[in-house]
Amino acid sequence: MKKQLNVSAREQNDHIAAENRRRFSEGGLFVSNIIGSPGCGKTAILEYTARHFREAFAVLVGDVKTALDSDRIIRSGQVDAFAIETGGGCHLSAQMIRDHLKKLRSNSPGFLFIENVGNLVCPSSFDLGEHIKVAVLSIPEGDEKVRKYPSLFLRAGAVLINKVDLLGIMDYDIERVRADCLAHNPEVRIFEISAKTGQGFEDWFAFLRTRRRETFP
Amino acid sequence: MKKQLNVSAREQNDHIAAENRRRFSEGGLFVSNIIGSPGCGKTAILEYTARHFREAFAVLVGDVKTALDSDRIIRSGQVDAFAIETGGGCHLSAQMIRDHLKKLRSNSPGFLFIENVGNLVCPSSFDLGEHIKVAVLSIPEGDEKVRKYPSLFLRAGAVLINKVDLLGIMDYDIERVRADCLAHNPEVRIFEISAKTGQGFEDWFAFLRTRRRETFP
Repeated sequence: MKKQLNVSAREQNDHIAAENRRRFSEGGLFVSNIIGSPGCGKTAILEYTARHFREAFAVLVGDVKTALDSDRIIRSGQVDAFAIETGGGCHLSAQMIRDHLKKLRSNSPGFLFIENVGNLVCPSSFDLGEHIKVAVLSIPEGDEKVRKYPSLFLRAGAVLINKVDLLGIMDYDIERVRADCLAHNPEVRIFEISAKTGQGFEDWFAFLRTRRRETFP
Repeated sequence: MKKQLNVSAREQNDHIAAENRRRFSEGGLFVSNIIGSPGCGKTAILEYTARHFREAFAVLVGDVKTALDSDRIIRSGQVDAFAIETGGGCHLSAQMIRDHLKKLRSNSPGFLFIENVGNLVCPSSFDLGEHIKVAVLSIPEGDEKVRKYPSLFLRAGAVLINKVDLLGIMDYDIERVRADCLAHNPEVRIFEISAKTGQGFEDWFAFLRTRRRETFP
């Protein structure tokens, strides 16, 4: 019978996350924790990034089961991508990240992208040691997700609105989504992108470079 | 400091779920627990149902925040729909259902649809007392979701593949999805539907009527 005290589990996670963040900073590694629904395009965004981002980076990919996503990213370019199977767990934990850090090459890259489990709720509450939480939305999901799942949008430093190539085909009030994001966090940066066409990625990449320079002056 | 023993919380949920199921059966109420990602179309399916299902039914709608979805369903037809805000919780619990059962009209309907929180992971593990778990997939999410989120598909008695009107526009191997569903549960019934065009709903409604007759002979 597994018994667990929730408070101490959360405290332990925060403690390990702080250690992770210290290690990231020592290595000059700027870390993004990418969170969104199943099917919003997190992996497709990282595939596009693997082909077009001209910086050294690595990827850790959380999934309940399978290594399908990390395999997709590896096939897209010269990038180290590693799967973390949570075995039923609905989010990544700081401990899971720590366990996989040793897999990253010793000549450490400048950026680490962590693709969290596809889930708009649970991952937002667990600090992994990242420098920024990145929320991913997509046009087919509908335009009311920010209102319905507020906890992620209170914490996200950037929002990627993906699949904007479908804006002509589907009803989606993107100005409403922008306003909802800003209502939760006036400092948030919002990027309208398409992992299919590449729209918006140059701005997103420039933002990442700037944030890294600001984090490690 | 909130401390909680997970085992007893789960046992308590199962206990209340069994009570709910007993109450449902006494009232001849056939209960579906509808589970899928944010934006897969759970609410749109219930809107279509409100307009076209010729049986008396009620709806309970779980959301992390807002009553947007129950409002949409109420606007669609003569149906009792009630919001359950989980206040951050990533799934409905049997207790939340019990707390809201008194809202259902005394002249009890034959069907109750429970729309769970948009989440492919956590809701699948919590029995609400339903007769059937219904998994909702959608074309824009991509065709690998059954492999990546197995726990729901081990337990679902029916799968609705929604937004099939987009099959021409997006890459989606529907035969692969069917095979993956059947690999998890050979007894599962799969319906290809579109809440936009109405495709497939007559078969789905007929299945519900049959399952209710079998459950309450």
